[in-house]
Amino acid sequence: MRDYASASLKQLAASIARREVSVEDVARAGITHIEEYEPAVHAWQHFDPQHVIEQARLLDAQPQQGLLYGLPIGVKDLMDTADMPTTYGSPIYENYRPIVDAACVAASRSAGAVLMGKTVTTEFATFQPGPTRNPHGATDHTPGGSSSGSAAAVASGMVPAAFATQTAGSIVRPAAYCGVVGYKPTFGTLPLAGIKSLSPSLDTVGVLTRNVADAAFFIGALARLPLSALLTLEAQPTRLRVGICRTPNWDRASAATRAAIEQAARLLERAGAVLSDIDLPAPCGGLTDAQIRIMSYEAAAAFAPEARTHADGFSKAFAAVLAAGQAIDGCSYVAAQALAAASRQVAAGVFENVDILLAPSTEGEAPAGLNATGDPIFNRMWSLLGNPCVHVPQGMGPGGMPIGVTLIGPRWGDASTLAAAHLLENTFATLN
Amino acid sequence: MRDYASASLKQLAASIARREVSVEDVARAGITHIEEYEPAVHAWQHFDPQHVIEQARLLDAQPQQGLLYGLPIGVKDLMDTADMPTTYGSPIYENYRPIVDAACVAASRSAGAVLMGKTVTTEFATFQPGPTRNPHGATDHTPGGSSSGSAAAVASGMVPAAFATQTAGSIVRPAAYCGVVGYKPTFGTLPLAGIKSLSPSLDTVGVLTRNVADAAFFIGALARLPLSALLTLEAQPTRLRVGICRTPNWDRASAATRAAIEQAARLLERAGAVLSDIDLPAPCGGLTDAQIRIMSYEAAAAFAPEARTHADGFSKAFAAVLAAGQAIDGCSYVAAQALAAASRQVAAGVFENVDILLAPSTEGEAPAGLNATGDPIFNRMWSLLGNPCVHVPQGMGPGGMPIGVTLIGPRWGDASTLAAAHLLENTFATLN
Repeated sequence: MRDYASASLKQLAASIARREVSVEDVARAGITHIEEYEPAVHAWQHFDPQHVIEQARLLDAQPQQGLLYGLPIGVKDLMDTADMPTTYGSPIYENYRPIVDAACVAASRSAGAVLMGKTVTTEFATFQPGPTRNPHGATDHTPGGSSSGSAAAVASGMVPAAFATQTAGSIVRPAAYCGVVGYKPTFGTLPLAGIKSLSPSLDTVGVLTRNVADAAFFIGALARLPLSALLTLEAQPTRLRVGICRTPNWDRASAATRAAIEQAARLLERAGAVLSDIDLPAPCGGLTDAQIRIMSYEAAAAFAPEARTHADGFSKAFAAVLAAGQAIDGCSYVAAQALAAASRQVAAGVFENVDILLAPSTEGEAPAGLNATGDPIFNRMWSLLGNPCVHVPQGMGPGGMPIGVTLIGPRWGDASTLAAAHLLENTFATLN
Repeated sequence: MRDYASASLKQLAASIARREVSVEDVARAGITHIEEYEPAVHAWQHFDPQHVIEQARLLDAQPQQGLLYGLPIGVKDLMDTADMPTTYGSPIYENYRPIVDAACVAASRSAGAVLMGKTVTTEFATFQPGPTRNPHGATDHTPGGSSSGSAAAVASGMVPAAFATQTAGSIVRPAAYCGVVGYKPTFGTLPLAGIKSLSPSLDTVGVLTRNVADAAFFIGALARLPLSALLTLEAQPTRLRVGICRTPNWDRASAATRAAIEQAARLLERAGAVLSDIDLPAPCGGLTDAQIRIMSYEAAAAFAPEARTHADGFSKAFAAVLAAGQAIDGCSYVAAQALAAASRQVAAGVFENVDILLAPSTEGEAPAGLNATGDPIFNRMWSLLGNPCVHVPQGMGPGGMPIGVTLIGPRWGDASTLAAAHLLENTFATLN
């Protein structure tokens, strides 16, 4: 398979369905590609080619069934796998082998996917980096986090899709830094069972892919949602109304990010959209702070067991998150939740006047170095609101690293959000 | 300790603090009581007196610290425990021994609690009963479910408090059937990490206790919320406005339940409350159906792993829940979530005009027999709204089994909800 590294999920599915290639052919192409690039990228926490081949042969021996039949995917190592080690990016779980798959992992198996391995996560999906390097750039740049390995694996062509999770900015930020599509569905779309809990009010399962259509296809298959069918704007009733939302953190946006927003706005306009500027009304200005409070308080609660027995296995960075959370009293937490609830109502009102919001994904291009994974400052508020977000890549920024924007739709408006992202992606493609 | 079986958490804490009794004294009194009543009640899935004594001695050897220092509690067997087996009420997990505690369990240990054992849950917190019998009644009656063992253990004086969880009606219903206080906090109050996930939009950790003050004390301690301090209505600004909410399911309420609502209304009125009748506006009428859809869809997603590998270990009842959930498509699920979101907004508006809602807990007294655990018909809507609920017992109904009502407050209005429940409890006590 010469085109493995550029093929989309849907192209691979079509080739397999037509029996042009076997599941094993695809898996072997993936293995070859991983073996070539992994020494430089370090996307995988666990990769066992023999086990991949075994999965593929089992599938080849069965009737072709399942929407993801034969498709190679990466699984973030925050997700339990009964047939592979699961570390959650922490030395505490270095030798952990769960007895049951995470629910979304089991669903992907039942749909016929081939699990190529476990992708590197930062420690417990927070800020202590793993070994992964951004596939782009002449020198080492962070791939972002926490879904570091999933983003780097997709960006380097190792897999066409990889599971990711977001609590603050762990899908959109690595997607932006690595130049791939990152899709965080509406909060609650896919099950969290068997995924190490960080902050249950925020934790969301999503995916990183090469293009928007694959993201829709993958999540739609797992959630039994017609996201692919609704991808084209012909299925949409109205002319797209895009609200440019610079967010209260706009002063943190670099020139590269500002240019990406401007470019995306012009592209959408060219595609027929009507633009307006949107300032989210009060109390939305407090969302970023509220997200930090809720995430810290809930993380301290969720990690009470490890804090009792294995605190010496925490990085300093993670211990600091937990200490901050432990210092937040319940009333402060409740106030943050109340602000979130009120803001969700306000945001729902905003979406009566626009179909989609356009906002920065990151402060700028991926920072150089591997000691940190960048700041989720532009993602936190959307994670707390729970709205669907799609990061759409727009090529390279002035620093030679990927750049792009986030499109945000109304809660449960995933189909229209993906359709808008698809439109932007297609319009951008016409530039080249 | 002669008064173990009637002592409240707060009384036990005071006795221990004054060193009138050691932690071991309390634990031994609990063990004696459990050994006496357990053969008739079957509240415990796992009970190891020696391990209880070990925990108590360790605490006696330490400085008295932690809000729950030395207090004996029951842990629902849906919650992981690193030092005890955890079955989730299913033969699939008959020999399961988690490596990490559930987060709320670890928090209770860190606060000094003594874990008396694991209480019986129905299979995966749904409808297939365990062996537990209602401590009340001349013949066998269901204790309700899914927190069957926790309710029976508290009702029979084995422990003053036991962890419970609710997805449909699994705290309030067993509380009502067994005649104890059941407190379901606002959705999201305590962490779910390490608790077998059933329906993450609904799953809520709470507690069963002998009285309202203990419920406030226990949850307040774990969530760092000042629920105890705000328990008296002197801390409340206004005259209590009580809305009697018969719900769209009122035709399912027995004469006993109708009488309990009437009695509660008169008691609250006598205590100074102003009464009104509240019909929740549209779209709240669809909440019960929406709860069933969401629970089924999410259960099917959460149990994808077991369905792949151990479906033969499911009861027929549970397999039917999963099959129903698998048949629900994503759009129907999304519509149910949208209805819930709109209803939460409407319900928030209702609480601008009343402080508390008064509603049925169950259709009536506990049904005879052990083959079913009763119907959560009156609990489902509140579970989906996420509002705090407190079941307040009101003695025995005409059938000789316990009866009571539910008080419901606004989301995050747990303190005022508990204060109203405390008022009703106190006013009821003056009848005797």
